[in-house]
Amino acid sequence: MLARSILITGSSRGLGLELVKQLSAANSSPGHIIATCRNPDSALELKKLAETHQNVHITRLDVGDEESYIPLVAHVEEIVGSSGLNILINNAGISPKSTRINMVKWKHMTDTFHVNAIAPLMLAKALLPQIKRAASQMDGGCLAAKRAAIINISSILGSIEENKEGGLYPYRASKAALNAITKSQCIDLRNFNILVTCLHPGWVQTDMGGKSAPLTPVESVSGIINTLHNLNEEHHGGFYQYDGQKLPW
Amino acid sequence: MLARSILITGSSRGLGLELVKQLSAANSSPGHIIATCRNPDSALELKKLAETHQNVHITRLDVGDEESYIPLVAHVEEIVGSSGLNILINNAGISPKSTRINMVKWKHMTDTFHVNAIAPLMLAKALLPQIKRAASQMDGGCLAAKRAAIINISSILGSIEENKEGGLYPYRASKAALNAITKSQCIDLRNFNILVTCLHPGWVQTDMGGKSAPLTPVESVSGIINTLHNLNEEHHGGFYQYDGQKLPW
Repeated sequence: MLARSILITGSSRGLGLELVKQLSAANSSPGHIIATCRNPDSALELKKLAETHQNVHITRLDVGDEESYIPLVAHVEEIVGSSGLNILINNAGISPKSTRINMVKWKHMTDTFHVNAIAPLMLAKALLPQIKRAASQMDGGCLAAKRAAIINISSILGSIEENKEGGLYPYRASKAALNAITKSQCIDLRNFNILVTCLHPGWVQTDMGGKSAPLTPVESVSGIINTLHNLNEEHHGGFYQYDGQKLPW
Repeated sequence: MLARSILITGSSRGLGLELVKQLSAANSSPGHIIATCRNPDSALELKKLAETHQNVHITRLDVGDEESYIPLVAHVEEIVGSSGLNILINNAGISPKSTRINMVKWKHMTDTFHVNAIAPLMLAKALLPQIKRAASQMDGGCLAAKRAAIINISSILGSIEENKEGGLYPYRASKAALNAITKSQCIDLRNFNILVTCLHPGWVQTDMGGKSAPLTPVESVSGIINTLHNLNEEHHGGFYQYDGQKLPW
């Protein structure tokens, strides 16, 4: 089993929905899959999954609105109880269309930082008591996703080294910031035996990635789940793509 | 001469003030040094410099307030005219005291992103017509500060690779974002022959750096000015410290 409990943000579509699908269909499915989205009422595919898999719990969360973290944390506490939360996957993200420097607007930058960089940090902070509790269930100092992990879904577009195309200021800057946050989290949370990494899901055929992307959501997510199983001390604080390949900052 | 015109944000104290001091005292001082700060009335040292150096122009600018860019751009236009603006040094920055993950607040993150990452980008966008005009005064495709340059004052704390201490989420994330912005700017502005780099000033004895820092503002700024003189194509889109040493992302 990957973990007893796992929380995934942005689960109504794209990679988030596919993560819930594959995890709930697995032979050893996690005991609790907490699938958050902004509007559960309109998340029809997610609701179908929850009807046929009683370990899928749909919870409302607008990651850009810190007020909505309070009922979320209470709901997570009810679900996971004394076992704590093993894995937080910060998957929710936005990508504004603004491209070159003459098109970028202050509001694009702010909105994208809020959802893609600040929210993953503040949500990890809010859920830290539950994640620490899960980490403390295991003896010794080993790091593994089945023990406790924060997985920040980043992007190759956040790699400064790999930027050969320019533009995309809001998205690139927010993901580079998320990578920086991940590195600080890895240092701050090592003593609590909580593994932290950022993952690039590949360029995927989703609403965000578009139809010409080379990877299907099924391929990306099966790679991500396989990589999650293999995460250990050497991945802590690093930047990897869906298939486990290391990426430069 | 380093440049005919140079604009420096955050010039009322610290590195910004020292930059204005050394540039105005140089044998071949720039024709126009536009020194911006939030409150010119209380910038006593800067006012003294402007009294004795007629090429120092003090202009009000709150980099976090985009509205204040409009009168600034008009003032710059009056000063530099058809020659354009050679160098923009995005020096203004803040560093909130919040350290570990349990202390960080949403507002720390937002405020720091605004001043340290979004403002340098939006100010470059606002001044781009003047900077392009300066770049077009020279034939050929060479890059040099004396032609046209955007210098983003970053920090080693924004290097994800070099982060061994953790914490400092707002500052580290904002400077990593600024580094990502710099890389996109370098690609977007290459065709206009505008050089873009990010510079780490060293750990300096300023209000921000504290008294135990190893470098004086005089040492840091004399290094920065020397480095500015030497910038060329190979520095474009890179991350360097005050003495010209290359830094990892």
